[in-house]
Amino acid sequence: MVWTPADLLWSLTNRAGLTAFESVCANLFLVLIASLGVSPVYNLIRGSQFNPKGKHVYVTGGSNGLGRAVAIDLAKQGAHVTIVARKEGPLKETVELMKQAVAARKNPTEQKFHWISADVTNKEASIRALDEASTHFGGKVPDVIMTCAGTAIPKLFVEASTDEFEWQMKLNFFGALYTVHEAAKRMVETGVKGKFVLVSSAMGLIGFAGYSSYTPSKYALRGLAEGLRNEFLMYGIKMHIYYPGTMFTPGYESENLTKPLVTREIEGSSGLTPEEAARGLMAGLRKGYFAIATDFDTNFLRVASKGVSPSNNIGLDYLLGLVAPFGAAQFLWESGYKVKAYAKKHLKKDI
Amino acid sequence: MVWTPADLLWSLTNRAGLTAFESVCANLFLVLIASLGVSPVYNLIRGSQFNPKGKHVYVTGGSNGLGRAVAIDLAKQGAHVTIVARKEGPLKETVELMKQAVAARKNPTEQKFHWISADVTNKEASIRALDEASTHFGGKVPDVIMTCAGTAIPKLFVEASTDEFEWQMKLNFFGALYTVHEAAKRMVETGVKGKFVLVSSAMGLIGFAGYSSYTPSKYALRGLAEGLRNEFLMYGIKMHIYYPGTMFTPGYESENLTKPLVTREIEGSSGLTPEEAARGLMAGLRKGYFAIATDFDTNFLRVASKGVSPSNNIGLDYLLGLVAPFGAAQFLWESGYKVKAYAKKHLKKDI
Repeated sequence: MVWTPADLLWSLTNRAGLTAFESVCANLFLVLIASLGVSPVYNLIRGSQFNPKGKHVYVTGGSNGLGRAVAIDLAKQGAHVTIVARKEGPLKETVELMKQAVAARKNPTEQKFHWISADVTNKEASIRALDEASTHFGGKVPDVIMTCAGTAIPKLFVEASTDEFEWQMKLNFFGALYTVHEAAKRMVETGVKGKFVLVSSAMGLIGFAGYSSYTPSKYALRGLAEGLRNEFLMYGIKMHIYYPGTMFTPGYESENLTKPLVTREIEGSSGLTPEEAARGLMAGLRKGYFAIATDFDTNFLRVASKGVSPSNNIGLDYLLGLVAPFGAAQFLWESGYKVKAYAKKHLKKDI
Repeated sequence: MVWTPADLLWSLTNRAGLTAFESVCANLFLVLIASLGVSPVYNLIRGSQFNPKGKHVYVTGGSNGLGRAVAIDLAKQGAHVTIVARKEGPLKETVELMKQAVAARKNPTEQKFHWISADVTNKEASIRALDEASTHFGGKVPDVIMTCAGTAIPKLFVEASTDEFEWQMKLNFFGALYTVHEAAKRMVETGVKGKFVLVSSAMGLIGFAGYSSYTPSKYALRGLAEGLRNEFLMYGIKMHIYYPGTMFTPGYESENLTKPLVTREIEGSSGLTPEEAARGLMAGLRKGYFAIATDFDTNFLRVASKGVSPSNNIGLDYLLGLVAPFGAAQFLWESGYKVKAYAKKHLKKDI
């Protein structure tokens, strides 16, 4: 028999006329379809996993870009928000924006918004900032820590300086680590079952020309999150990691100043506003996802490099995983082609 | 019809009696079987991708553990070998072992073995060591760079100090980076189509309790290798990364001194000798694999988290990828269970 969609539908309800092999395939197909529903139903039953209303959320890099958008989104959801960054001006501005966002509320004054000027790449400053944030909450460690501070300096490897590698590791990885380490110790000591959200990047899931100094710092965050997700089960503390794709932030504009042409060609020009990225992050947190991605490409990367970390939608992740190797092969070929074409045109040496 | 192996074999040659659907499945099955042969045949046609005979190979961490085993293996293959590490004693010992390994050769004196005492976590020392190594070869940069220096300090996150995080990142990641960066610049300047081999770890592919300070540094190496593999296509330079599982080295013994009980329970006790690991690495390099793993578990992790990086055996990697999510789910459950059981027993707090 030749299978049409009508045959397919029919076979799912009536197995007469099917060979044994076709019946087994029909069953497998049914299982696959059913598996698509497992995670949504599970999520529906257990309900939202993230409601920041009345919680104290501590956001590093909160003065602009994703951090600012996250802070404002949290404010709208009723959270107390402390933002940490270096520059006073943008910090004050963001607090103003949070206040405006909740001004129409019944009791906007119940929400506390604070800013702290601190350099998170400095361990002592990170601890002091956490201390300061806690003073407004009876000394209690924040309920949720979101580390949004980060920067990228895209360059060709041989044109980058190792100082740039050190700086990006210092800010992107250690800037998160110092805060996470101190906050986790306090949560464990005081029995707070808190939540951490690390912000990595699509470049924490893939590496290509021009990001050699950025990618390692974002991979390092992935490694930290994957390990701590398991380890924090000891204390009931939750770990999440967010892999945003391109975001049109002030940081994006500054990285474009040094970005090699070939890097632009490989990464393309699509992206999200920080507000969209923040909304996507919140949606992922409500579903309780460990690894959060907000656009199709990054979700594809997340699935392709999932390793031993939890699925989001079990059935869909599995299905995507079946086709991921083909997409990966195409990207490998394309990015390889672009790099070699760039070399031919710009390096003028035989390869 | 019911399928037996005999039916299966028969169907591959004679499609009579099969429904159209069964015939399509038979074709897909044939494609899958055929795909298992694609990579081996391709590897056979293009031949060995690594013959260190007469090449100058520069091995950091070459005084003991994997680095020493790699150096001796390379010596046996006819390479000139420069080993770099801090301690003179073990360095001299390793050079002696290399000399002994080739003593029975016809012209053992043609091979050059050198040792350089240098701290690879220091950028200037790394550059000086490369300079020194080059002087024996007319100032030419080594043909192959293998970065084997590394260390692990397993501890529970809240019991680790951030200094330990910094030290492991400094040695495991920057200790490789400084050498790779300087050598790559020289290769590009002088048109040497060299080869880099970074040594990560199975913990560069997975994270769990006790390795939070180690995992990020090994993930960072993965990110570096994945990006540079693409970028170095510009220059004809090859990048490889090795993910060894547990190796019974002096480093393994020292890390066991601080290793939490729960970490031992999760990781198990199987492992390889450094000599076996070195042989596995060489086999992977000969096949031209980008990502090299030598035991089944690590190969499983490699496939499960392959992301956008090249396959080793295209068909086999795809097949392994089909079952990887099930293995990953089991490991997730088991490691989660072990961590919670550990907490119940040792932390004596409600979770």
